[in-house]
Amino acid sequence: MKTASEIQHLIHLLSKLPGLGPRSARRMSLELLKKKQELMIPLGQSLLETAEKLTICPECGNWDVISPCSLCSDSERKQTVICVVEDLSDLWAVERTNMFHGVYHILGGKLSPIDGVGPDELRIPKLLERIEKNQIIEVILALNATLEGQTTMHYIKESLQGYGCKVTQLAHGVPVGGELDYIDDGTLSLALKSRSEVA
Amino acid sequence: MKTASEIQHLIHLLSKLPGLGPRSARRMSLELLKKKQELMIPLGQSLLETAEKLTICPECGNWDVISPCSLCSDSERKQTVICVVEDLSDLWAVERTNMFHGVYHILGGKLSPIDGVGPDELRIPKLLERIEKNQIIEVILALNATLEGQTTMHYIKESLQGYGCKVTQLAHGVPVGGELDYIDDGTLSLALKSRSEVA
Repeated sequence: MKTASEIQHLIHLLSKLPGLGPRSARRMSLELLKKKQELMIPLGQSLLETAEKLTICPECGNWDVISPCSLCSDSERKQTVICVVEDLSDLWAVERTNMFHGVYHILGGKLSPIDGVGPDELRIPKLLERIEKNQIIEVILALNATLEGQTTMHYIKESLQGYGCKVTQLAHGVPVGGELDYIDDGTLSLALKSRSEVA
Repeated sequence: MKTASEIQHLIHLLSKLPGLGPRSARRMSLELLKKKQELMIPLGQSLLETAEKLTICPECGNWDVISPCSLCSDSERKQTVICVVEDLSDLWAVERTNMFHGVYHILGGKLSPIDGVGPDELRIPKLLERIEKNQIIEVILALNATLEGQTTMHYIKESLQGYGCKVTQLAHGVPVGGELDYIDDGTLSLALKSRSEVA
């Protein structure tokens, strides 16, 4: 195919993005060419600027332009409550609730011996260091309710014995708007077990 | 949400890409941050470079770094056969077949009076100009088999009366690997009508 190598290279890079294949990358590159001024150039600049400015917070693992990040250095947030999450996207999800006012700790994944991911790959030592240093009262393990997430949760729970801080986990139950008929049996069992009195 | 404004801006731009919403844009931005060196910076550079270097070919409407484009200026291609397509992606699709060795003409869309797209918006005058100038033998109308594509095809067919060139269209039929049971009745009728003797 006699397409300019610049476009081919762009399509190649776009197709590496999660969820995109060659076809959607082609469609995207076309859309970008059509919207050169409004989208292509701003996106290119934004990518380079973000790549240049953002660093990982040495404390919690969040990405920010300042270090420690704006969450860790926010004096209005409780520095004594740590919410442990697997990934930045989970931090964003918790932040969107506007219900948590402590600090975070991003593990950077979950324990997976089969993929060679052990505690040292997961910033778990750093978590223990932070807990020791900052007199943490509570550690909320907001990990995914998957097998690996739960394994990681139990591993951290074990590691935290003797540190004297409360270790909590997210509640399981029926999602808001969820219909019982469509919910898996495990969730329903847990929702039943954790039932509360109607106020 | 206290996310660095750079990331927010990046997510905002990514979510404008076709087929992406806020959620997939977030996931993408995260992947990009994790692959700063291998993906984020190259993609940013590629976008800016492509935006800077590529221009629309004044003849056929293709995007290329040279003008007229590499297809129009290729002396090995028949300059007397024009394949008319709606969009650049269709040009790429025809090129992938390796079966066409003429030149192209990209309309830039299809006739759609409801959206205010008339012949003048579609580079149809330019097509007529090229046909007049270059002694074109055949015009292949490789337009989409949609209602609007077919309307556009018939409009161009009418416009080309008196130019003395052959006007052809793509064959309709059963796609290779297609099962009759899954093919719509219209396609099957046309495939039946255009049946050929088994060699």
